[in-house]
This record gives sequence, structure tokens and C-alpha cells, in this order.
Amino acid sequence: MTLRIHEIAAAIGADYAGDGEILVVRAAEPSSAGAEDLALAMDPRYREALAQGNARAAVLWPGADWQALGLQAAIFVDRPRYAMAGITAGFDRPPEIPPGIHPTAIIDPSAEIGEGAAIGPFCVIGARVRIGRNARLQGQVTVAEDARIGDDALIHAGARIGSRVVIGDRLIMHYNAVVGADGFSFVTPEPSAVEAARASLGRETAGATPQSYVRIASNGSVRIGCDVEIGACSTIDKGTVADTAVGDGTKIDNHVQIGHNVTIGRDCLLCAHAAVAGSSRLGDRVVLGGQAGVGDHLVLGDDVIAAGATAILSNVPAGRVMMGYPAMPMDRNIDAYKALRRLPRLAGKVAMLEKRLAKLEGKS
Amino acid sequence: MTLRIHEIAAAIGADYAGDGEILVVRAAEPSSAGAEDLALAMDPRYREALAQGNARAAVLWPGADWQALGLQAAIFVDRPRYAMAGITAGFDRPPEIPPGIHPTAIIDPSAEIGEGAAIGPFCVIGARVRIGRNARLQGQVTVAEDARIGDDALIHAGARIGSRVVIGDRLIMHYNAVVGADGFSFVTPEPSAVEAARASLGRETAGATPQSYVRIASNGSVRIGCDVEIGACSTIDKGTVADTAVGDGTKIDNHVQIGHNVTIGRDCLLCAHAAVAGSSRLGDRVVLGGQAGVGDHLVLGDDVIAAGATAILSNVPAGRVMMGYPAMPMDRNIDAYKALRRLPRLAGKVAMLEKRLAKLEGKS
Amino acid sequence: MTLRIHEIAAAIGADYAGDGEILVVRAAEPSSAGAEDLALAMDPRYREALAQGNARAAVLWPGADWQALGLQAAIFVDRPRYAMAGITAGFDRPPEIPPGIHPTAIIDPSAEIGEGAAIGPFCVIGARVRIGRNARLQGQVTVAEDARIGDDALIHAGARIGSRVVIGDRLIMHYNAVVGADGFSFVTPEPSAVEAARASLGRETAGATPQSYVRIASNGSVRIGCDVEIGACSTIDKGTVADTAVGDGTKIDNHVQIGHNVTIGRDCLLCAHAAVAGSSRLGDRVVLGGQAGVGDHLVLGDDVIAAGATAILSNVPAGRVMMGYPAMPMDRNIDAYKALRRLPRLAGKVAMLEKRLAKLEGKS
Repeated sequence: MTLRIHEIAAAIGADYAGDGEILVVRAAEPSSAGAEDLALAMDPRYREALAQGNARAAVLWPGADWQALGLQAAIFVDRPRYAMAGITAGFDRPPEIPPGIHPTAIIDPSAEIGEGAAIGPFCVIGARVRIGRNARLQGQVTVAEDARIGDDALIHAGARIGSRVVIGDRLIMHYNAVVGADGFSFVTPEPSAVEAARASLGRETAGATPQSYVRIASNGSVRIGCDVEIGACSTIDKGTVADTAVGDGTKIDNHVQIGHNVTIGRDCLLCAHAAVAGSSRLGDRVVLGGQAGVGDHLVLGDDVIAAGATAILSNVPAGRVMMGYPAMPMDRNIDAYKALRRLPRLAGKVAMLEKRLAKLEGKS
Repeated sequence: MTLRIHEIAAAIGADYAGDGEILVVRAAEPSSAGAEDLALAMDPRYREALAQGNARAAVLWPGADWQALGLQAAIFVDRPRYAMAGITAGFDRPPEIPPGIHPTAIIDPSAEIGEGAAIGPFCVIGARVRIGRNARLQGQVTVAEDARIGDDALIHAGARIGSRVVIGDRLIMHYNAVVGADGFSFVTPEPSAVEAARASLGRETAGATPQSYVRIASNGSVRIGCDVEIGACSTIDKGTVADTAVGDGTKIDNHVQIGHNVTIGRDCLLCAHAAVAGSSRLGDRVVLGGQAGVGDHLVLGDDVIAAGATAILSNVPAGRVMMGYPAMPMDRNIDAYKALRRLPRLAGKVAMLEKRLAKLEGKS
Repeated sequence: MTLRIHEIAAAIGADYAGDGEILVVRAAEPSSAGAEDLALAMDPRYREALAQGNARAAVLWPGADWQALGLQAAIFVDRPRYAMAGITAGFDRPPEIPPGIHPTAIIDPSAEIGEGAAIGPFCVIGARVRIGRNARLQGQVTVAEDARIGDDALIHAGARIGSRVVIGDRLIMHYNAVVGADGFSFVTPEPSAVEAARASLGRETAGATPQSYVRIASNGSVRIGCDVEIGACSTIDKGTVADTAVGDGTKIDNHVQIGHNVTIGRDCLLCAHAAVAGSSRLGDRVVLGGQAGVGDHLVLGDDVIAAGATAILSNVPAGRVMMGYPAMPMDRNIDAYKALRRLPRLAGKVAMLEKRLAKLEGKS
């Protein structure tokens, strides 16, 4: 990938100065940037690192004196992280998936594959599947019967798409991700210990007559919007009767679990190991930090944010930032945590007060 | 799938009223149910939703006035969740796996495959493997040498079964699940910092001379009972000398980790992201909520229940309901949590008491 | 596998007594050991269990009276766990992967496969890949373009290695593990609610104008040292500009997540479900217990140990043992936890003190 400075500036809508014809082959950290690299130094604190490297061109903070920094060209950005999207897209090398359908791929005759599709070796595409235009399946992918995938999908090796799953356009699905396994739903013939414990907040587990579980099948499937990305080894289960649903623009990291019947809004962000238990509903733009969990049958409003490792065990109104186990509003959680750190000292102080008080009482 | 009302009622052992010959094609939520759907309205609070939909037939609570609800037929159930098992089973559409062995499957000549088996494309079955009757392997599955699987297994794409694993009848294994990877077991030549920290509860990490780890191999394998279900991307590791073991009827959700040498009883329920560390023993009917963890070398009695995200770090007697990190009995954990929320206020009150006491002391 | 007592003793550098020519076929627990087994009884508390079994040979604690225990041969060890490494290695049965390249494997003509490699069925090896000598790929493995793997790799079925990943010698990679998926990195055009919440510790989420995410591509890849083991279903993401890096000798359990740009030192131990968020740096010999998490952009010094389920949300100096959520030094966390258990009682005591104080104040 070789780009000119003026091309990059145009692509990200930024101004540049100096020799716009300079060619760069990749973005690099300032201190290790070579003569062919574009150094990323969007903050004055990278000034020194820039001097250590050999970059001729860099992305700088607004107003930076690029000539004094020894550069021959510079691009100026005021929202560095957003600029990164454009810059890394420019240098991106998409997976090499040869065009056309690989002769080893097994595609049911009733499946419809859109124009321009590239389907790699050892893929298995089931009956009546429909895949849109320009799909790229890297190889060793499974798409089970009756699934439908929109245009421009990029699906990496080992990804599995279950029967009747429906996905919109521009899906990105990473290695070994799974959409459309059966929901985890079992029931005992008579009320079980878990039901008793839930009803009594743990005080009772009576009625624990040994019973085996009976399976509730997943008659529903999964419905996913457009522009959704699903990380490696993540799983989204089928619904029981209706479909599990994920809205447009939602991004899902690795090892994420989305249980049966869950509904997730649009433009949500679910970080690694986040889990949403069965039948919960998340609004739009909800963010779950890494390892955060949401219990079953809960409702989270729009714009709820959960810090990493938060365990949400009750409904959360829109716009709230949550933290802790069980989750509290983040500022209260931080106060409680600070108080907890000082708690052993507080207990000592109370013991001392009691002694002093007893002494006074003895006198009076 | 098309079923008559009287067929469904008979299958779930329930009474029905009205026209038992009505045909339905699927179960549906009451408000969105069409004329060919069986509305699920097992609670009076669905009365209004039923009116919004167009169902002609519904599953209702006992004693419901089905005619007043505008229905032509109704099935009556008093344990709705249990009825769901029968109803969803009726409408279930099992994975389409063509009968017989797909020509691309690679099966070692020494393997024995039972009568009626369906083995999909690109499966790899190792030497001396034995698979029971009517197994259905969806394709792209691995069964390594010397593994044995009982009758009626259903194994989804990407599942991996390691060498010498033994599994009973009626296994269900979901996409990309793994049984029989090596245990995670390493040792340093001299005692390590972790060993010192454990022995001293974190006060000491002395003796941290840099050392590299040496591997302890997994001579054991995994032994799994009958009627076990293993969720997508879940893992059960081999034992060191003896086998890791999972009892009959135990159900395992997605992303669950069962470490080496672990023993799990029968009819347990391990929800998504639950993890059991090496050599721990769980009794029968134990339930681990989502993201719950059990430390290594622990013993959990029968009927123990751990709420979601619970971290169990010591033994738990039978029948106890646990919650928190580290786990306490659930009712104590809830009390402690409530007190924690009020802790900043308590600290303020103690400071105030101290002032008042000092004032009194000054007087006396 | 059949070994003589004197061979095992020599392999683990231990003394033996009795008939060194006795043949054993496997290691076993003392109580269930048969005449052909080597009983593992490295502690006097196994004395009785030994008597229950039928072992003729055992591994014993130093100075044990092997003849009184009814044995014909004994090996003596003083660090049992370390001895286990040698003993289990002796009895280990490595995966059966026939030598040579399986005819169904698809290997790009530009790939270089080292001498002695065994590559199983349905593997897909991309353009310009280089794999070292004696590699063993079990089948159904993906190695994407430009990846490089050192000598003596053992890679189990379903493992995926992304483009441009570089791995050293003696890699062990388990079923369905993933190295080199894209990092999880997104940005909104304008500052988002998450950015506001982070800056204000959760007090503000203002500026939550609905926005969709733009993707930051992963121009970097992953660089892994020698002697690294990667557990089943674990994931290591590519870096944004530089490579995500894992040092020599580091061992990674199942379901572990290592985010983009993370740097992990040598000889670290990451237990199941541990997660390290983007751009954090771990020193050498760091140990993360099961389900432990490290937030993004943090620095953990050498020899840091995190107990299971610990959530590290700020930097940690070298040598510290951490526990809790958020993490505290372990001893402080234990003190705080004990105080938390007693907190409801403490609150009651404070209320009582207040009453007594008010009474005194009334008198004075």
C-alpha cells in the first residue's frame, strides 16, 4: 500500500503542508518511523519521539511547526482518534480471498449467491441460503439452511451462521464467531431449587427433589441489522419463539455472549467477554465494558454505559453510567469503594468510640 | 411443521377446548400471532396482547374463558415454562444433515460408525474412534483418535472432540465447542512467586527468581455422561492422570470453561462464561449463573446455586445459595451490599458522633 | 507407552529403589492403581490409598519406607508437582497426525513449509506463509497470508492464524484458538458519551448526540515469542499500527482475550477467561487468575499476580499481589472483605452508639 500525503489528507478531510507528493507505505509510531513511514504524532508530547525517528512526514496537532520538527510534509488533525479511522483504512490490507467460488466449497444447489462473491475453500452453504453481492467468505465457513446475508459481507474462517439467521449488509464476522446456536433454555417438570431461590432471594431452596432438565427448543432464530461487526469466538443464540435481535451499527468484540430472545439496539458497543442473559433488552448506543454482564429479563435504556466487569442485576434507566457488582451508578460505586478501602479503619474507630462512650457513661 | 391443536395438547399432556382440528404452523407471541400461529398467552396479563393479534388458537392459563377471548381453540397449562418444552419441541426444525457419510468426510479405516449415522462434509474422524447409532455430525467436525461417542449424538459444525474422550448417548454439542484440549498445568523447577503468594494470602511473593514454566502433560482425557448439552465455544479440558468428568443430564451454556481434573455431578446447569478451575468437584444439580467462577481444588456440595458473576473461592456445603466476590451466602451478600451502598453515609455519621463525643468528654 | 522404573527416575533426575526393570504403562492415583500402573503418592497422606490399590511401583516422598508399603520399586521426589511434568511427559501420547501434507490441504504455491512438517486434512495455508521444521497441523487449520511460524509447532484443529502474524518456535495452539483477528477499535466523528463518562468518572454523559461508529483498521499484526502455548478458543488481536506482542514462555489458557496493541512479557501465566484490554502492557512473569481483567492503557510491572476475578483498573507496580473489583493489594482486599461481611453489624452498632450518646447529651 503506497499513498501520497495529499491523498491521505483528502481522504480524512484534513489540511496538509509541505510536499504533498511524498509517498508513505504505512503509519508508524513517531520514534520508530522510517523515511517511508507516516509518523503519528497528533499531540505535542510526541515531539521528542518524532526527533528520535526518521519520518519525513507526520500527522500533527493543529498549529504544529512542522518545519521546526524537521519534516518535509505534515497533515494536521484535531480529533486524532477519528483521523486514525481514515488513516488506518488507507493502509489496510484486506484478507486475500481469491474471487469466485473455490472448487472445494460445497454449496447447496438451492442456495443463491450474489454477484461478485468470493467463497473460499471448504465452506459449506446450506439449502435455500441467500448471500448478497460481493460477499467474501474466507474459507472453512458454515452457513446453515435458510440463512440470509446481505451485500458486502466479510466472513473469516471458522465462522458459523445457523439456520434461518438473517443478517443485513456489510457484516464483518471474525474467526470462529457463532451466530445462531440454540438458546440455553431448560426446565424441570416441577419447580426447581433455582426458582425457589430466585423467589426468596436465596433464603430458600426447598423442594429440591432431584429432577432432570427438559429442553426448550429454539423455534426462533437471529436477526441482525446492517453494519454489524462480530468478534472472534463470540456467540449470539437463537430465540425461543421470536428472534434474538441486534440493531444496525452495533459492534461486538471477542468472546461476547448474547443469549436467546435478547434485543440489542443500534450503535451499541459490547466489549470482550460481555454477556447479556436471556430476554434482556438493551436500548440504542449502550456500551458494555469488557467482562460486563447483564442478567436475564432486564431492560437497559438508551445510552447506558457499564464499566468493565460491571454486573447489572436490575433495570437501568437511559443515560446512566453503571459500575460494580451488583451495579450502582458509577459515582456512587466509586464513593462506596473508597469507603470500603477505609472500612477496616472505620470499624476500629467505632470500637474506640464505644470505649470512650462507655467511660463517659460510667462517670455520669 | 404443521400440528393440530389436539396433537399438541396430547404431546404436552394438557387439556384443550374448542376445535382440536385447527392447524398451526408455529408458536408466537400473542400480539404478533397470525391466524396460523399458536399464541402463547399462559398468563392473564397477556389478555390484551391476545386481542391485538389474530390468533385463532392459544395456550392459556387454567380456567381462562377462551371463547370470550375470541379464540376457536385453546390449550390450558398450569406450568407454562414446562409446557414450552413440549410446544417448542413440536415445532422444532432440526439441522438439515443429509443421511449417510458425505464423500468429503475423512474417516480413518479403523473407526467404527454406528448404523444410521449422518456425517457431513469435511469432518475428520481419527483412528479407532467409535460413534454410536444415528449420530448426526453437521460438517467440519473433528473427532480425534480413540474417542468414543454414544448413540443419537447431534454435533454442530466446528466442534472438536479430543483424543480418548468418552461421551454417552444423546450428546448435543454446539458450534465450535471443544472437549478434550490439554489441561492448563505448568510448574516451575523451584517454588514460584504464585506459590508464595498463595501460602501467605498475598503478603509474600519472595523467591521470585526468574524461572520458565515446564509443562505437565494431560495423560487423562474427558468422560461425559448421557444427555449432556455443550454450548458454542465452550471448553472441557483433559485431566492430568484421571479423566475430567461431567455427569448425566448436565447442561453447559456457551463460553463455559471446565478445567482439568474437574468432576461435575449430574443435572447441573452451567450458564454462559461460567468457569470451574482445575481439580474442583461439583455435586449434583449445582447451578452456576453466568460469569460465575469456582476456584481450583474446591468442593461444592449438591444443589449449590451461585448467582451470576459469583466468585467462589472456598468450599460450599450442599444446598447453599451463593453470591458475591468472594462469594457469601446470598442473603448475607445482599445485606452487605445494601450496607455498602450506605457506607459513605455511615462514615459521615461516625465522624459526627466522634465530634459530639469529644464535646461531651470536654465537659465532663 | 511402556516405561521402566529406572528410565522414569533418570528422566526426572530422581533416585529410585527396588526393581528398576519393572514396566509401567501409565501414572495413576494410588487407590485405583493396578499392577501395571505407577502410583503417584508423593505425600504421606496417600499411605492408606496406596494400600487400597494394587500398584507394584510408586512415586513416593523422600525417605518413605517403600518396602513396608508393599512395593517392589519406588521413585523418590521432593518437589512433586515438578516431578509430575517429567512423569506425564513420559506417558504423553501426542496427537496422531500422519507425516507429510494431506492431499486435501490447500497450500498456496508461494508458501514455504519446513522439512518434516505434518499438515492434516482441510488445512488452508495462504500466500507467502512460512512454517518452520517439524510443524504438526492437525487438520482444518487456517494460516492466512504472510504469517510466519517457527519450528516444531503443534497446532490443533480449528485454530486460526491471521495475516502477517509472526510466531516463534515450539508454539502449542489448541482447538479453535485465534491469533490475529482485527482489534476492536471504533470511533465516533464527535466525542461520544463514553469519552465524556470516562473524563468525568461517570458523572457526565452529555453530548450524547446519536452517532454511528467508524472503524479503525488493524494495520499491525501479532508477534509471539518462542515456547508460547495458547488455549482453546483464546484470542489475540492484531495491533493498530504496531504489533500486539506476547513474550517467550508465556502460557495462555482457554477463552483468554488479549486486545489490540497489548504487550505481554515473558513467562506470564494467563488463566481461563482472563482479559487484557487494548494497549495495556504487562511485565514479565505476570500471573492473571481465571476471569481476571486488566483495563485498557494500563501498565503492570514484573511479577504482578492477580487473583481470580480481579478487575485491575489502574497501574500496578512490580511484585504486587492484587485482588478485588476494583483491585486492591490482596491483603487489604481480604481485610476490606472481612469488614464488609461484618458491615451490617457495624451499622447496627453505630445506631446504638448514637442513641446512647444522645441520652448522655440529654443528661449533661
